[in-house]
Amino acid sequence: MIVAVHTPSEARTADWCAMLAERLPDWRVQPMNAVTDPAAVRYAVVWKPGTGRLAAFAGLKAIISIGAGIDHLLEDAALPDVPVIRTVGTDLTQRMNEYVALHVLRHHRGMPALRAAQAQRRWQPVVMPAAPDRRVGVMGLGNLGAAAAGLLAAIGFDVAGWSRSPRAVPGVRGFAGEAGLAPFLEGTEILVNLLPLTEETRGILDAGLMARLAPGAALINAARGPHLVEEDLLAALASGQIGGATLDVFHVEPLPPEHPFWTHPGVTVTPHVASLIDPPTGSRIIARNLRIFEETGTAPDIADLRRGY
Amino acid sequence: MIVAVHTPSEARTADWCAMLAERLPDWRVQPMNAVTDPAAVRYAVVWKPGTGRLAAFAGLKAIISIGAGIDHLLEDAALPDVPVIRTVGTDLTQRMNEYVALHVLRHHRGMPALRAAQAQRRWQPVVMPAAPDRRVGVMGLGNLGAAAAGLLAAIGFDVAGWSRSPRAVPGVRGFAGEAGLAPFLEGTEILVNLLPLTEETRGILDAGLMARLAPGAALINAARGPHLVEEDLLAALASGQIGGATLDVFHVEPLPPEHPFWTHPGVTVTPHVASLIDPPTGSRIIARNLRIFEETGTAPDIADLRRGY
Repeated sequence: MIVAVHTPSEARTADWCAMLAERLPDWRVQPMNAVTDPAAVRYAVVWKPGTGRLAAFAGLKAIISIGAGIDHLLEDAALPDVPVIRTVGTDLTQRMNEYVALHVLRHHRGMPALRAAQAQRRWQPVVMPAAPDRRVGVMGLGNLGAAAAGLLAAIGFDVAGWSRSPRAVPGVRGFAGEAGLAPFLEGTEILVNLLPLTEETRGILDAGLMARLAPGAALINAARGPHLVEEDLLAALASGQIGGATLDVFHVEPLPPEHPFWTHPGVTVTPHVASLIDPPTGSRIIARNLRIFEETGTAPDIADLRRGY
Repeated sequence: MIVAVHTPSEARTADWCAMLAERLPDWRVQPMNAVTDPAAVRYAVVWKPGTGRLAAFAGLKAIISIGAGIDHLLEDAALPDVPVIRTVGTDLTQRMNEYVALHVLRHHRGMPALRAAQAQRRWQPVVMPAAPDRRVGVMGLGNLGAAAAGLLAAIGFDVAGWSRSPRAVPGVRGFAGEAGLAPFLEGTEILVNLLPLTEETRGILDAGLMARLAPGAALINAARGPHLVEEDLLAALASGQIGGATLDVFHVEPLPPEHPFWTHPGVTVTPHVASLIDPPTGSRIIARNLRIFEETGTAPDIADLRRGY
């Protein structure tokens, strides 16, 4: 029985293989590119495996996505019809919480303007509203979104959440579905996107959505690049409708050097680090899920491929 | 009965007078510089009133400090022997919480390095430890320090607190007194200073203290400028013992344009905004305290002048 591993980086694939082999000493863990016996592959632990690659493993029992998202698999029309197990865990939730709290607070407290003032040696105190008077909206209330919204409420913000179907998060005003989107957006001063990427959510962060936010609102995208219509954000920054943005994800990654986001004074670019899964943590979660699946035929965090997350 | 008001800015003094007059319609509120009848002054609501100025009011019943600190009063050897009421409240605690959480998270997640990478259009993801593996130390566990330490623990950090006398904060490892300082500092990766400024704490952030922190530690000073030996910080930044600092307070404020902190790549300067008291909020708290004191002869948050806070 073989576990085949693939990531877009050979070095990282080697890391994952080593970590998984250590945690699964009785299993054979191999890089997907170097599998010795394709018919013996039972599990594929992958990030962006490439179209059609997994179909080569006729005995595959499950696919493990190295991360919470499965959009990198759904583009594959030949994806084997086996369960897909998402990799989620308290460590990943913790990291996303930190990222969201950090960037909401940065916009809330005007850090980009304060840093610009420092560059000009300008001592310019400004009294900001306190968090209870600041409306923050979180789109997506899955594992990550619900936790982040809860932490923002604990910090003191006035938090609303929006999800496809209604979901209650303590301390968070809930909105759901298409009908709930406009009232959710109205008055929102800092918008955080943590939606899964599906056909319904692709391009959801567009000019129409941005126009509904409070004037000068901040936008934080920590989900997937294709959620955002990049030209619409540039136009909204130019008009002032959006006052600033923090983007962790992009249509093309790494973000090409010529992209205008790099040098835009209103945009903070982070290199897809919001909730980076590290092999020590990720391999612990994945090894546990593999053992559970092998014993029981199911596992926690199996994705719903029809919904897309 | 007159309430005399003073701040170093005439415009801000006028703001405070207007706000207090609105909340105390039956009292006479006047700028200290324009008091019509010194003998009728019963209360002085002040920030940095200047040495000897308050002694002119023979009928003074209490002094109200516009803020949590009273160090700006203690320099006055002729300070009238009346109770000093500090201005504290949930709004000020909330603002300090936000500032501390923001800047601890900024250092924790390597934001200064990420911003530098963006300036060079460098896509350079780095996996950071998660907050439970990051040791944060909070010096001072008064109203502000205890709340900030509690919030940092709620975000997930490994938090220790240090105070003059032992004080328990849930989720925070406590250290106290001179004997507790070295074990508190050992291994601390992000140090937050929220101590009151007293003769004992002046200059406490010096080379000896910084040397005990984890190599490359971050320092956040949101208390008072004279807590920090500024030359020692510059030396520790040069040696790498301190990896970065966020400073909200300085020996001289506004920070003079020629000061090296403005342009130091390892220093974030904020213009004393961590917990800026705004007249609408502050006047509400102060008016309530004045009415309580007038009725009962005492008030919450009376300072202990011997301790200095």
